[in-house]
Amino acid sequence: MTTDNDVLADFRALSEIGATEAGGVERQAATVNDRLAREWLVDWLRARGFTTRVDRIGNLFGCYEWHPGAPYVLVGSHLDSQPRGGRYDGAYGVLAAAHAACRVHERFAESGDRPAFNVAVVDWFNEEGSRFKPSMMGSAVYTGKMPLHQALAVTDHAGVTVEDALTEIGFLGAEDGPRAAFAAEIHIEQGRILDKEGIQIGLVESTWAAHKYQISVVGEQSHTGSTVMADRQDALLGAARIIVAVRELADRFPEGALHTSAGQLIVHPNSPVVVAREAELHLDLRSSSLDVLHEADEMLNREFAAIEMSTDVRIVKKSAHFWPASEYQPEGVDLARELSGELGLSHRPMQTLAGHDSTNLKDVVPTVMLFVPSVEGISHNEREYTKDEDICTGVDLLTGVVERLCRGDLRQP
Amino acid sequence: MTTDNDVLADFRALSEIGATEAGGVERQAATVNDRLAREWLVDWLRARGFTTRVDRIGNLFGCYEWHPGAPYVLVGSHLDSQPRGGRYDGAYGVLAAAHAACRVHERFAESGDRPAFNVAVVDWFNEEGSRFKPSMMGSAVYTGKMPLHQALAVTDHAGVTVEDALTEIGFLGAEDGPRAAFAAEIHIEQGRILDKEGIQIGLVESTWAAHKYQISVVGEQSHTGSTVMADRQDALLGAARIIVAVRELADRFPEGALHTSAGQLIVHPNSPVVVAREAELHLDLRSSSLDVLHEADEMLNREFAAIEMSTDVRIVKKSAHFWPASEYQPEGVDLARELSGELGLSHRPMQTLAGHDSTNLKDVVPTVMLFVPSVEGISHNEREYTKDEDICTGVDLLTGVVERLCRGDLRQP
Repeated sequence: MTTDNDVLADFRALSEIGATEAGGVERQAATVNDRLAREWLVDWLRARGFTTRVDRIGNLFGCYEWHPGAPYVLVGSHLDSQPRGGRYDGAYGVLAAAHAACRVHERFAESGDRPAFNVAVVDWFNEEGSRFKPSMMGSAVYTGKMPLHQALAVTDHAGVTVEDALTEIGFLGAEDGPRAAFAAEIHIEQGRILDKEGIQIGLVESTWAAHKYQISVVGEQSHTGSTVMADRQDALLGAARIIVAVRELADRFPEGALHTSAGQLIVHPNSPVVVAREAELHLDLRSSSLDVLHEADEMLNREFAAIEMSTDVRIVKKSAHFWPASEYQPEGVDLARELSGELGLSHRPMQTLAGHDSTNLKDVVPTVMLFVPSVEGISHNEREYTKDEDICTGVDLLTGVVERLCRGDLRQP
Repeated sequence: MTTDNDVLADFRALSEIGATEAGGVERQAATVNDRLAREWLVDWLRARGFTTRVDRIGNLFGCYEWHPGAPYVLVGSHLDSQPRGGRYDGAYGVLAAAHAACRVHERFAESGDRPAFNVAVVDWFNEEGSRFKPSMMGSAVYTGKMPLHQALAVTDHAGVTVEDALTEIGFLGAEDGPRAAFAAEIHIEQGRILDKEGIQIGLVESTWAAHKYQISVVGEQSHTGSTVMADRQDALLGAARIIVAVRELADRFPEGALHTSAGQLIVHPNSPVVVAREAELHLDLRSSSLDVLHEADEMLNREFAAIEMSTDVRIVKKSAHFWPASEYQPEGVDLARELSGELGLSHRPMQTLAGHDSTNLKDVVPTVMLFVPSVEGISHNEREYTKDEDICTGVDLLTGVVERLCRGDLRQP
């Protein structure tokens, strides 16, 4: 039986891979540090009797079979990080999954019970999407949402493809991975509701709805020094006006109703003495209310038109994706609630604003998503921190969830 | 005697080096294309009896000596370009200098006169500053404004130093270059005053005053999806507000009184799902009036304070440089005006908003700066265009200027 101390020691060891001075980690997808973290996990799993497999998009599975040929309970998260990211985001969920699967294995060995489903610990490839877009790539391919060939052809800023990067780190597999019956994931909250309310477990009921836009602001390249102001078609200025407008959109709704962000800006040619000819921008609107999101989308389009006029640029929508708020299977939430009660853990229902691999998984199999508190809700930051006791509590609950899923206590739809 | 047709044919040949599909050139400093353009110039000069020399910062000189040991009239501009820049900016001035020097050489050979000063055609290294900052690097080192070791240590985005890049292209010299007595440069206007007014020649009297700032907006890295709006310290939003404020600053003065620009923005970590922790930005304020510039600087500082408050970021000035409007020697302007009259060319006095190598040279020796029209004033753009007749007229006038400077008709201060 793995102990709390084992969990904490393993987490410290894992956090040293790609550790940054400020206490975070730098392990972007398919980099050397991602490889080192994956190799660490492979060693850990093999030492405990798991068989490791890698699928065609680099998802890494540690499998334990009681019923050869039966489908699997997939439990995991991701080892990749943002640039200078936190050490809990993703990695905690993978390690918790590994310990939970190991404990379940031991419980069945002790009791002699033979569960209905097999178990696999998963490190989903490229959840973060910082090096290769989009995010949640591995789980998107696994669940059939993104074509494999399209994902493999995605390039980073240096022009390296996902296929080449995975080959380089030795994690491009030649199979489809184990078949799923159920899925589970545990993650830090990336918000501060649990921390503020002093609650140990978040039972995730649904995602927020989201509207994502990739846009290009097209101006005209000219000399900053000599081009008179009236003649400029400044793509960077257009992008700046959009960033400000997107922020102010959030203030036009009740506090907390709408989250907006502009997370990436690429300027061409981005020279100090040149008025930019093009600026590419990612925008992101999220809300728990569809109505709010639709209204915000309309407002944003009116802002685009106004900025095109005022700044003499064209705003081209290169892509726009809309995700409605979508529910995790209520039976899974009930199961996690029941187990939290049995373990004496305080809990509350939650929505997730952030995307997770489980967001993809729940669309194909019944999926349980759990949150543990994150101090002050700091996320995608080296100062991300979750208390040791919350780490251990999460593993305890996840163990119970995985055991019940393996037993087949949750009906398949 | 080189003819107009020679000038035009040579310009077409030179423009093919690094030519882009849209009619511009891509010849950033010390790249392969910059090397090819320089080798083309070296061949051209040597074929006409010039001796080529390269100094320690990669300035390329084509020298013709009548008086061994006497100082030189330096006439030239730059062959490097912006990314996807125009084919006239800089290259025209170098080619015009080459033809002018050649013609002066022929005139003296024919007349038997022996001028007081020698002549050198110059390609100043890295005028554009897009790959290696700052701009006008070669002339800054030549005139003692920038220490050589500091310039050689500057790196591009890939971490390559100026020293290594110059070595790589074979243009790192081991000498100080010829000593200057006078300088001259001809350039396209990069504005549309001459084009609009139908005037053939601009006689540059002075530069505009400029205030340049390199600033860093410091926020706090967090998750775009889950961080509530009130908690964000978004460096990209801060930068966007600065870009908008800087543009609106220009509108608070009479039209044309103040030029403002934000020409380069680098965002960290620049991931679609991360609130940026830092954004670095180059700002540039220019005016012909010192009062306007000082007032604008004060306004900008008040804007910085307001944005720090509204956006919860810190704005750090990493550097701020101020250049007063500074005059070219009036005797040089008079000389060019007199010659324009003799050649029957329409002309007007002008100020230059853009920096030029002559801006550095005039601070150490009497310097003549000439403009020819640029259609619609399009600059730092592949569509930059100057009419053939204006190209040829410019060479004629520059020839006269170089001849008179070589004769010593302009008093040294």
